[in-house]
Amino acid sequence: MTTSTKEKIVLAYSGGLDTSVAIPWLMDKGYDVIAVVLDVGQGGKDLDAIQKKGLAVGAIESIVIDAKDEFADEYVAPVILSNALYEGSYPLVSALSRPLIIKKLVEIAHENDAHAIAHGSTGKGNDQVRFEAAIHALDPNLAIEAPIRDFHWSREEEIDYAKDHGVPVPIGKASPYSIDANLWGRANEAGILENPWNQAPDDAWGMTVDPQDAPDEAQFIDLDFENGLPVAIDGQAMKLSVLIQELNVIAGKHGIGRIDKIENRLVGIKSREVYEAPAAAVIMTAHKDLEDLTLERDVAHYKPIVEHQITDLIYNGMWISPLFDALMSFVVTTQAVVNGKVKLKLYKGSVQAVARQSEHNSLYNEQLATYTAADSFDQIAAAGFIKLWSLPTMVYEQVNHVHSDKLED
Amino acid sequence: MTTSTKEKIVLAYSGGLDTSVAIPWLMDKGYDVIAVVLDVGQGGKDLDAIQKKGLAVGAIESIVIDAKDEFADEYVAPVILSNALYEGSYPLVSALSRPLIIKKLVEIAHENDAHAIAHGSTGKGNDQVRFEAAIHALDPNLAIEAPIRDFHWSREEEIDYAKDHGVPVPIGKASPYSIDANLWGRANEAGILENPWNQAPDDAWGMTVDPQDAPDEAQFIDLDFENGLPVAIDGQAMKLSVLIQELNVIAGKHGIGRIDKIENRLVGIKSREVYEAPAAAVIMTAHKDLEDLTLERDVAHYKPIVEHQITDLIYNGMWISPLFDALMSFVVTTQAVVNGKVKLKLYKGSVQAVARQSEHNSLYNEQLATYTAADSFDQIAAAGFIKLWSLPTMVYEQVNHVHSDKLED
Amino acid sequence: MTTSTKEKIVLAYSGGLDTSVAIPWLMDKGYDVIAVVLDVGQGGKDLDAIQKKGLAVGAIESIVIDAKDEFADEYVAPVILSNALYEGSYPLVSALSRPLIIKKLVEIAHENDAHAIAHGSTGKGNDQVRFEAAIHALDPNLAIEAPIRDFHWSREEEIDYAKDHGVPVPIGKASPYSIDANLWGRANEAGILENPWNQAPDDAWGMTVDPQDAPDEAQFIDLDFENGLPVAIDGQAMKLSVLIQELNVIAGKHGIGRIDKIENRLVGIKSREVYEAPAAAVIMTAHKDLEDLTLERDVAHYKPIVEHQITDLIYNGMWISPLFDALMSFVVTTQAVVNGKVKLKLYKGSVQAVARQSEHNSLYNEQLATYTAADSFDQIAAAGFIKLWSLPTMVYEQVNHVHSDKLED
Amino acid sequence: MTTSTKEKIVLAYSGGLDTSVAIPWLMDKGYDVIAVVLDVGQGGKDLDAIQKKGLAVGAIESIVIDAKDEFADEYVAPVILSNALYEGSYPLVSALSRPLIIKKLVEIAHENDAHAIAHGSTGKGNDQVRFEAAIHALDPNLAIEAPIRDFHWSREEEIDYAKDHGVPVPIGKASPYSIDANLWGRANEAGILENPWNQAPDDAWGMTVDPQDAPDEAQFIDLDFENGLPVAIDGQAMKLSVLIQELNVIAGKHGIGRIDKIENRLVGIKSREVYEAPAAAVIMTAHKDLEDLTLERDVAHYKPIVEHQITDLIYNGMWISPLFDALMSFVVTTQAVVNGKVKLKLYKGSVQAVARQSEHNSLYNEQLATYTAADSFDQIAAAGFIKLWSLPTMVYEQVNHVHSDKLED
Repeated sequence: MTTSTKEKIVLAYSGGLDTSVAIPWLMDKGYDVIAVVLDVGQGGKDLDAIQKKGLAVGAIESIVIDAKDEFADEYVAPVILSNALYEGSYPLVSALSRPLIIKKLVEIAHENDAHAIAHGSTGKGNDQVRFEAAIHALDPNLAIEAPIRDFHWSREEEIDYAKDHGVPVPIGKASPYSIDANLWGRANEAGILENPWNQAPDDAWGMTVDPQDAPDEAQFIDLDFENGLPVAIDGQAMKLSVLIQELNVIAGKHGIGRIDKIENRLVGIKSREVYEAPAAAVIMTAHKDLEDLTLERDVAHYKPIVEHQITDLIYNGMWISPLFDALMSFVVTTQAVVNGKVKLKLYKGSVQAVARQSEHNSLYNEQLATYTAADSFDQIAAAGFIKLWSLPTMVYEQVNHVHSDKLED
Repeated sequence: MTTSTKEKIVLAYSGGLDTSVAIPWLMDKGYDVIAVVLDVGQGGKDLDAIQKKGLAVGAIESIVIDAKDEFADEYVAPVILSNALYEGSYPLVSALSRPLIIKKLVEIAHENDAHAIAHGSTGKGNDQVRFEAAIHALDPNLAIEAPIRDFHWSREEEIDYAKDHGVPVPIGKASPYSIDANLWGRANEAGILENPWNQAPDDAWGMTVDPQDAPDEAQFIDLDFENGLPVAIDGQAMKLSVLIQELNVIAGKHGIGRIDKIENRLVGIKSREVYEAPAAAVIMTAHKDLEDLTLERDVAHYKPIVEHQITDLIYNGMWISPLFDALMSFVVTTQAVVNGKVKLKLYKGSVQAVARQSEHNSLYNEQLATYTAADSFDQIAAAGFIKLWSLPTMVYEQVNHVHSDKLED
Repeated sequence: MTTSTKEKIVLAYSGGLDTSVAIPWLMDKGYDVIAVVLDVGQGGKDLDAIQKKGLAVGAIESIVIDAKDEFADEYVAPVILSNALYEGSYPLVSALSRPLIIKKLVEIAHENDAHAIAHGSTGKGNDQVRFEAAIHALDPNLAIEAPIRDFHWSREEEIDYAKDHGVPVPIGKASPYSIDANLWGRANEAGILENPWNQAPDDAWGMTVDPQDAPDEAQFIDLDFENGLPVAIDGQAMKLSVLIQELNVIAGKHGIGRIDKIENRLVGIKSREVYEAPAAAVIMTAHKDLEDLTLERDVAHYKPIVEHQITDLIYNGMWISPLFDALMSFVVTTQAVVNGKVKLKLYKGSVQAVARQSEHNSLYNEQLATYTAADSFDQIAAAGFIKLWSLPTMVYEQVNHVHSDKLED
Repeated sequence: MTTSTKEKIVLAYSGGLDTSVAIPWLMDKGYDVIAVVLDVGQGGKDLDAIQKKGLAVGAIESIVIDAKDEFADEYVAPVILSNALYEGSYPLVSALSRPLIIKKLVEIAHENDAHAIAHGSTGKGNDQVRFEAAIHALDPNLAIEAPIRDFHWSREEEIDYAKDHGVPVPIGKASPYSIDANLWGRANEAGILENPWNQAPDDAWGMTVDPQDAPDEAQFIDLDFENGLPVAIDGQAMKLSVLIQELNVIAGKHGIGRIDKIENRLVGIKSREVYEAPAAAVIMTAHKDLEDLTLERDVAHYKPIVEHQITDLIYNGMWISPLFDALMSFVVTTQAVVNGKVKLKLYKGSVQAVARQSEHNSLYNEQLATYTAADSFDQIAAAGFIKLWSLPTMVYEQVNHVHSDKLED
């Protein structure tokens, strides 16, 4: 609990230059700043040092929260169950942490009687929407500050401002990239990537080796699922947050999970993005494969339509929305039977399901599928089926001759 | 033109044991048999020999038709434009040749005054539906014979029948697999694959090397597209049927295009299938990537829904249907802008788009997307956008408190 | 419990000629017949007499079950929540009773150690699918008899058979119609209706007056909803089965709920159907109107897509299916906020919602919507919203000039 | 052609107070104003007088364009073909005229070398989006003025400003409503309607009589369609714009086409709207009914999904968009067979299709549908069909026992 007569603001803090400069900037606007960092598995960062830095540059309070389990269980899990890949390939890395960050920030604002929240997003990305839509939903009375969107500073001006306000400035040339990471993956944009005809250079990648540097031997792993979620690697049970981190190491070593794409942002522009998501690549390959074995056909064919909508909602900042909740009811209902084991082959940049089984829920029936003497399928039924199946199009052709008139005689 | 007083039947002939045995079987039923083989790029087969074999086992006429170009231009092209992958991965190899085969057989039946068509499908697969639905649509007066579905013979009985009727029987152990191929790919089922926990053995594959035996150096190729279709490899123009065959060789050498999946058949069972489609893997990766650059966002987000339906229609034997035609009108309309070049990396079993450009139709705008001083995006507009974008869910939460009541304070 | 050495069969019995003749026919096939009638509110029938008739024509047991409440609560309620109208207008009357009838028949079969079930559907309608799909799902070991489908009798032959076997034959000319009814409505087909250019004659209708004979004064009623289901008429609470029957009387008197349509049957043909569903017309009008007030926009726009699929599943006999269950999870989740009151005007064949309110869940906000001084809407935000909303199509036009090139200058 | 050194602006002019006051207001901002009125069948207005009024209050040029035929043929026709009803009931009246108005205004701007366009929409409605999105698409270089959105005036201030600038002020109490009309219908909002529990008073309606005041005799009309569009009333051919106006009179006299609804606006709020669209009610009822007779089943079941998207696009200002164009390709392809005649009954506020025929394209086949001796349907095929149709759900139940475990034994 802090005591001060000034208006308090809770800042989504990363320790980087932008959100560090934001602290004096918000102080200048009259706020007492509470800096908050969530550990969502971004890795490679000394969170203690970040916490201290927050205080050093002026925050009245600086908080680090270990949110890895909540992130995995409440935010990544729905993505796994939904096979959620934006525009067919992006596993929604950054879109997932935003609603959790805001949930924590709003709770801290309420505890501290703060009436404002600040985030470090620019004005042309998706994250500002995800942050602010979540704030509007959870507490519409909270004011919002978006200093980076409002700075209108050149890099030089920002550095001057930092120096003037005692904010440490990184030495040497700044990274050309803008990076966001959590345990579900890593997003990279800007710099040389802005030209879509440029290939992503080696230094654009951080979680995976180049497939050409990966081991020359394939690695096989077994992944166990319960109710659609992975619960064990090679028979060894572990909680989801740990399982994901393990798989990031294993699959990253094989160069798996690199994504290079042109993407449609919610704010109306196309951007070029480079992502890495090694664990996501493995888990989602296995999950889909196990669904192929256990989901009934109509469910299997309808679920992608629902998944498409869920994915867009998450990407578009609508995590907190009644449509997301209703669609997830659908998804969760389908997953009670997604139990079993998938064997995966990891080799030189790609992962493939090579075998799968489900002791209690497999709908694959060798007696029905076989071409051997064990066949129990009623082949006679097929002729009747085909007759009624094709009756509407047959009548249509008889009446309208669209295709039969085009035959060469 | 043949002359005979007996009823004529046109048989979809492959030269294999089943459809060869079908010839005397149909003769026993009182038919004069016209055997027809289409060359749809199945490869590895001596079509002349097959033509002669048809006559040798009793057909009154035996016809080979080179349909490679018609197959590529009229049947494969829609699949490319539609990114059509059944259940997310199968590029519809066999489903594509069936309507073309029937079209040719009906034309030949009409030319020869034949009133029946025979096909060699079993009673538990999809192909019987595809064959018969197409026949019903193109000429509902044609009778249909499906000898394999009606045989009810054991392997031994079939061989005895063959020997009794002068049909050559393959020497040695029969292949454990049931294979269908054309220039778009190769399907393999049955045998050891019937247990989904068995890994596909080496002899299950025919168009691709094992990725571990692929070259240690990645290969880069440029693919040019016009109106959504590939027209050149590394700047060298070629017609579609040739381009596909070239890419099968190039990509097959890198072990690309292997698919191993549990699949829902139209007839209601799950089967385990092993496919190879090297050219399809390359072309479809590139096509989707170029669409990401050239399709407007709403088109890009709606087209997958249409594609999903097109794919199911093709798989389910509804190639000749007014819904397929209407959906393809949608797709073709979207493809006028899909022009440009994609650079692909082929390496050890996987293909990835690594760069792309479109001189006249790229919607990627570096001035809008950049984070440099060249930025022309109106960042101020974003705040207003977010307010209205999130207004409905904000009001919903204000009224119903679904998520805000769950905050910890 | 019955005791007999013969094989027992449970028959879905209606008391009509067809299912009465079926009893001796099944006896001839060696069965002991257990006749079962469900009271699902079909009305106008003496169920005691039907029960006795079952025994009189030879059933070893004849059972009447009052299933009105289970029918309303478990089978009609999902239709209300889902606004389920097949092809936009048919509220699924007959499709709803079939799975309930089978559920009861299977239970009775299990209790009586019977191994077969018989139904009275023809071979060209939807009901055979609904009956048999439900039997296959609930107990695939049960044999199925479909005597009407197998009779191949002319009307005269059926009457002769009836007379020979002591089955009472209706005196005089048989009704030209084939009718099925329950508390949710009444279906009528065949006879003069088979020509779609014939108008439905007066005797085709049974639950509604001709609108021209309806009262000259409009009637207003208030319908209260809780969680999407109607619970009171004009403030008077009643259980669903009673509420529906009350509304059938009230709305039938005003000539409301007549439907005349060409319909696509699952078995591949088009049929002409005449339905009446007075209560359904009123309830579904009110339910949709209250949803307009209480559902968040994205939910309101996505739910029709889900409803479309639910409706087809029910129509197509897939009530017992995992997809239906999953889709209903979606629907039920959305209905927690559908609480309030709708005022309806009933007049001369039509029903209209004229006013609505929801004390706790209305998302209509007069302060946001008003054009008076009380306006709290941020009009400035709109300009920014429009800019980003239209950015993708603007860029598309700038690049491709599809529409701007067509301007006349 | 006008000559002036000042910057010119083209104003969408209606003759009402708001857009009349806008003329001096734009002049104050330094513009020469070109006022443009489109005749889209709004009726009840003296367009000559409006044209003169434009000049009288200061416009340098005032133009009236008869756009009724272009409006009917290019903007209303797609709505008919698409059965486009926003949220199930609103036939998109105002949303249709906006893109046409902008098309004409942009053409006039180009002819006159004007670089700006002004419209009279407020900041909380949909029309601002429709106007501005169309401008952005057709010429992104045009500046936009939205005086009403920017006024921030009370009614009294607006009247004072009008008096000061010689703009005629309506005598007496202003209408409490905000109305927009064209030949496709009439929209009314605001005033007493802002409380959803208030019933719409008599003076809210302008194109229809109260159903209770409609004729006591039903009227029957025959509507002929070609390629999905109505071409004749009772056999009398007329062009679309005239046919719609005729039907507005005929159906308006019977009180048909009143709509009272809570609607989700694109800008994020719910509003209460009262619409009248008599011709639309008749035409769309008939069109859907004729489609039921002529569209193949799969087309009939998929088209509503496409229609849903088209409707939202039109409502949301995306008329000029590649997705709209592609979806319309789908729709137009389906309409080649929608030819025939529908008989409609108009009575006391409701319209119903009571008979329909299509000489060349009816897919209704009495031989297949009949229950008489003429029956040509293969009833034996049904048993096989049902077996395969229900196989996936049967296997699912056998494995998972979801429903069979709930049976009472």
